[in-house]
Formats: sequence, C-alpha cells, structure tokens
Amino acid sequence: MSGFRIHPRLLEDAHRLGRLGGCHLLLHRNAAVPWFILVPEAEEESLLALPAPVRDAVMTDAAEIARFVTDGLGWPRINVAAIGNVVPQLHVHVIGRRPGDACWPAPVWGNLPRTPPYPSAQVAAIVQALAEGHGLAPDNTGTA
Amino acid sequence: MSGFRIHPRLLEDAHRLGRLGGCHLLLHRNAAVPWFILVPEAEEESLLALPAPVRDAVMTDAAEIARFVTDGLGWPRINVAAIGNVVPQLHVHVIGRRPGDACWPAPVWGNLPRTPPYPSAQVAAIVQALAEGHGLAPDNTGTA
Repeated sequence: MSGFRIHPRLLEDAHRLGRLGGCHLLLHRNAAVPWFILVPEAEEESLLALPAPVRDAVMTDAAEIARFVTDGLGWPRINVAAIGNVVPQLHVHVIGRRPGDACWPAPVWGNLPRTPPYPSAQVAAIVQALAEGHGLAPDNTGTA
Repeated sequence: MSGFRIHPRLLEDAHRLGRLGGCHLLLHRNAAVPWFILVPEAEEESLLALPAPVRDAVMTDAAEIARFVTDGLGWPRINVAAIGNVVPQLHVHVIGRRPGDACWPAPVWGNLPRTPPYPSAQVAAIVQALAEGHGLAPDNTGTA
C-alpha cells in the first residue's frame, strides 16, 4: 500500500471506477458529457513536470480512455487537459464532446449545466465495459 | 515543404514564434498570462488519437515550453490542454498560471480579460530566450 490518497474534492465530484494502467480512474458525476479523470500516483502536481516515461504512461492511459469515449460511447471529439487550479493534485481530464452538447463549444469547466446524477446501473455498465475491453481493474484501496 | 498550413484562426489569435521540436510554436496575443500554443504537423485532430511516439514527442515539446514558463518566466503553475472545439486543427495549449492572475482559478478560455498587445520587443525577447535555451528554430514556412 502506498498510502496515496485521492484528493477529497475529486472524490466529491466524481465516482471512483478503479485502476487503469498506473492511474486511478474517476468519472465526473455530471452526466451531461462523458467526463473521465485520471489520477496518477505521483508527487508532482504538473503533468509536464513528470519524468518523461511516467508522463508517457499517463498519456497512454488517457488514450485508452479516449478510445472508449469515441469508439465505445460514440462521442466524436476529445478534450484532454491537466489544469489543477482548484485541486492541485495532478489529475488529467479526458472528456467526450460533440457539436451541440450541453456547453459546446465552451470547455466544460464552469460552463456545464448541472444534470441529474448517473443512474447507478449506468456507472456499473461503464465499469463493466472498461473492465472487459480496456483493462480497468478494481481499485484495491477501494474506499469510495 | 509539406504544404502544412496553420489554421488562420490560430494565426489571428497568436504570434508565430518558430519551430520547437516537431511543432510550430505560437504565443497567444493576450499578454495577461504566458500562453503558448504548439501545433504539430499532424493530420489527426485529437492529441490522444496520435500514434504513441508522435504523441510522446509533442508532449516532450510541451514540457520544454513548460520549463521555460516556470523556470524562465517564473510562473509557478502550468495548464496544459488540447481542446479543439473552436479550431479543429490539433493544437496544444501550455499556459503559465499563478494564484491571483487575471482569471485565477478559472481556465483561460472565455475567461481572460483583454489586454494591450505584447510590445514587439517583448515578443522578440521571448523568441531569443527560447532560441538560446530551448531549441527554438526559425519557422521556414515563415509567412506570419
């Protein structure tokens, strides 16, 4: 056990889905667009300050999720970003977008209208699809 | 010559600084924060759809610019993103941020107040610093 903890604000905003590659995978609770968040177990707060092999591995995990969003969920465009102005812990957003979506063409941060929460069956279906096709594993720290 | 062209909207919004690694490097004309834009010569519109070695090379270039922003310009935090909702051509934003800056903690897109333009001497000084310390080369398509 690493003692690594996901920032409480991220856990408040998102469902914890499991582990994908070297990252914890979260799903933002706002269901307007498919909005995934990868949290690598890194001490650095900046994606671009990571050692190159670690950064490249995080991007590989992000590309895996992007493939699920485009090919599995059918959202044609991907926004990917590491911002960290509100939550300093390094986390990478991978977000499906399409023309005409809930805040197109604005970025989601601060612009996405609130939605009803995901039905729990839908979260479970996403976890199952990611486990079957994209290597998602249970998160063995599994507290949330 | 590749016949590659940078999207006109990017050239409208940004100064063209040169080539860094495999990317064209631009500087957004809004001088409120140091906002660089990397444009790889790629056909893909999505960063995460690039072949992994190409994607990793783009991120290496982005990390080089991030180092300039933090160590050279003294901005402690970096926002990095590939959005592409308005300009579909693949481009990666590398933006210096600090608590209390012109739109902190909001992301810059749609939130940054207009500023007077960069004095041309300041753009030239940035080009010189990037050429001397970070491998910036003249952009041989050099039309803007």
